Amino acid sequence: MKEKIIELLADENFKELKEFLADANEADIAECLDELEQSDVAVVFRLLKKDEAADIFSRMDPDTQENLIEILSDKEIASIVSKLYVDDAADLVDELPANLVTRVLNNSSEAKRKAINEILKYPDDSAGSIMTTEYASLDEDATVQDAFDRIRKRGLTKETIYTIYITDKDRHLVGVTTAKELLLAEPDTRMSELMEENVIAIPTTEDKEEVAKMFDKYDFLAMPVVDSENRLVGIVTVDDAMDVMSEENEEDFEKMAAIAPSEEDYMKESIFAQYKNRIVWLLVLMLSSIVTGKIITNYENAFAAVPLLVSFIPMIMDTGGNCGSQASTMVIRALATDEVETKDVLKVWWREIRIACLVGATLAVVNGIRIYLQYHDLPLSIVIGITLFCTACLAKSLGCLLPILAKTLKLDPAYMASPMITTMVDACSLVIFFNVALMLMNV
Amino acid sequence: MKEKIIELLADENFKELKEFLADANEADIAECLDELEQSDVAVVFRLLKKDEAADIFSRMDPDTQENLIEILSDKEIASIVSKLYVDDAADLVDELPANLVTRVLNNSSEAKRKAINEILKYPDDSAGSIMTTEYASLDEDATVQDAFDRIRKRGLTKETIYTIYITDKDRHLVGVTTAKELLLAEPDTRMSELMEENVIAIPTTEDKEEVAKMFDKYDFLAMPVVDSENRLVGIVTVDDAMDVMSEENEEDFEKMAAIAPSEEDYMKESIFAQYKNRIVWLLVLMLSSIVTGKIITNYENAFAAVPLLVSFIPMIMDTGGNCGSQASTMVIRALATDEVETKDVLKVWWREIRIACLVGATLAVVNGIRIYLQYHDLPLSIVIGITLFCTACLAKSLGCLLPILAKTLKLDPAYMASPMITTMVDACSLVIFFNVALMLMNV
Repeated sequence: MKEKIIELLADENFKELKEFLADANEADIAECLDELEQSDVAVVFRLLKKDEAADIFSRMDPDTQENLIEILSDKEIASIVSKLYVDDAADLVDELPANLVTRVLNNSSEAKRKAINEILKYPDDSAGSIMTTEYASLDEDATVQDAFDRIRKRGLTKETIYTIYITDKDRHLVGVTTAKELLLAEPDTRMSELMEENVIAIPTTEDKEEVAKMFDKYDFLAMPVVDSENRLVGIVTVDDAMDVMSEENEEDFEKMAAIAPSEEDYMKESIFAQYKNRIVWLLVLMLSSIVTGKIITNYENAFAAVPLLVSFIPMIMDTGGNCGSQASTMVIRALATDEVETKDVLKVWWREIRIACLVGATLAVVNGIRIYLQYHDLPLSIVIGITLFCTACLAKSLGCLLPILAKTLKLDPAYMASPMITTMVDACSLVIFFNVALMLMNV
Repeated sequence: MKEKIIELLADENFKELKEFLADANEADIAECLDELEQSDVAVVFRLLKKDEAADIFSRMDPDTQENLIEILSDKEIASIVSKLYVDDAADLVDELPANLVTRVLNNSSEAKRKAINEILKYPDDSAGSIMTTEYASLDEDATVQDAFDRIRKRGLTKETIYTIYITDKDRHLVGVTTAKELLLAEPDTRMSELMEENVIAIPTTEDKEEVAKMFDKYDFLAMPVVDSENRLVGIVTVDDAMDVMSEENEEDFEKMAAIAPSEEDYMKESIFAQYKNRIVWLLVLMLSSIVTGKIITNYENAFAAVPLLVSFIPMIMDTGGNCGSQASTMVIRALATDEVETKDVLKVWWREIRIACLVGATLAVVNGIRIYLQYHDLPLSIVIGITLFCTACLAKSLGCLLPILAKTLKLDPAYMASPMITTMVDACSLVIFFNVALMLMNV
């Protein structure tokens, strides 16, 4: 599709390009625009159907949007902004540099400007920041006929067709009804008779991650957002909830790999920004492993006498790290999905310690036999076996307890993942290793 | 809520319990049922409103569903199955043991039974397996009036309200229209005039992970599923796409921690099953680190002469592992979200090597200074500095190249995560370390 657009641009065949764009899907066009040369973007954008341009604009990358705003005339900007959903307009204003923000706001209607500012005042991670203020709501005294008149007059959007919110005179949310109910009811039925009164509403201050979880649980297409006095102020739609879910997941993957989370895409972020995201944890963890190094120097006599011991250090460290990160990954995810809560700490530990015994015993036996066959040294294979067993138990325990401890201390459990657990388990497993060796071997 | 139910059960206050359940949300009730004693589940379930029972049933855990099917009468089962969406009924049949499957199918209508079997014949990871065969479709010659009559007669479901699919006489998908268009059009308009002909449809054989990505990209509430001849066979709805997205994410977290992925929840899976999921990779990785151990024995002379060298092994191994898993996590995620493709391999490597130089230089300088201040040994700090720099470059390179290589070989890149990368980087970084030490120090 991108090739086709470039070809038509090169031929200056704008008539065919216009027809081609009219038939294409908005999300696909936005994806192509993100990949075109800056100068071409404006050319293509001006060929779009007027009623699709705003939708396509809202789906483009922030960089492409910024470039386009710089090129477009005030009139063109006004036309786009007037058609953008308020939540998309707020996202745009949030991302643009200050001078362009002024241009955008100057070309918005006063109502839109007020609505945008309304959304921007909510903290970045709150439900208020992802809601839109365009939704279908009706007074509890309105009739089904009123509802249809309103829908015919104002039009419908994807956001508003399925769920209609019912408010009282003071805009308090009192109920919800669906297009299905409207279609099946008599025209003179009042909303107060039709509506379902048990509405699950989100406070504006709710964490947006919790909002995404509620969508996953309840399978709603939209949820109402209310202020502290239960007045309806907006709705969150399922597509925005999906975006939050994706973002939070990417952040968790990054945190669990000891990277400071970033909203920018991998290929778009600058090298220096990525360096900054990665170096902090690397330094912290590197300096922590100095402790492990220190511990080893205490056992210099042991490996001076039996140099072979040194060759088992990597295996013991790696196995300990892997055992620990398996446990921590499972527990971090179970905490993230609310399957495990901090009060379950003993139950979780009891699970992990039993798994650790099975895992540790298997590793000990397999490796014990391997070492005995290779070196014919029974004490050595016993030392390695015992070390592996103890390391597995310790690693699984730390792996499950540290994320829960972090959550108890209101820290993000995702940081207690593989890198952190590995560093901690390393030190402990080597202490076990050398002590068992000192006890059982002639060193 | 669970406490309230248990309290009312204990008091045998079924009247109030019934009222309480009638007012509660279906997803919340299902969650409580999953946590109640087996014997209580059936009692509570029988108090549910008839038209809500099937919805609640479809939201319960497979275990709870199984227990309930065992207890309920044939008549009760028939009543539930008749109200279940076909995709939920197919999920149920897929999870139940054989004897209960027979009971469920014997109590289904023939149409339902056929529809269930239709869905079950698609492979587990295909679009066909997550679609439902209940959707709103109209002939291209139908009028808007016909559409409303049909909706009033057959009722509407969440799945069908927003999008209506238009087919020709042979059930080929030819267009799509929305409730919005229907409401705004004249009653005698034909579907063929109203419909949008550019429909993005999913083949039944499409990977369900790709389907979830399409929902994320296009923000649809439902998408049509077609067979190889473009005949409409079902629809996938956004809530099912969200479930796929969550599942795939959990699987990736597990794979990246060297755990065989499992669909079972952490707290519900048996200890032995979890042991099996974890032990395979642990054994593979443990035996791989024997190679690293072997390498160390080659340099016995080096650390016999300067025992202090041994104390740097943990720091070098950990730092290498962390550098590598940062890169591999970023690249695995970028591959999973289609941001990076295999043909970008050189671009990705060029990014990583530049980040590696910055990271490596910082680590080298910080640690070089630290060691010089601690041991006043300039050659040693240079050895450690050079080793850290080379390890960072090597680790970041392996970390970005191996996932892309895996993808090229049609393997899952998620397995090229921290545990695998760490094991490989360990061996290489120690070779670098000892060789640099042999060259620069008097050993």
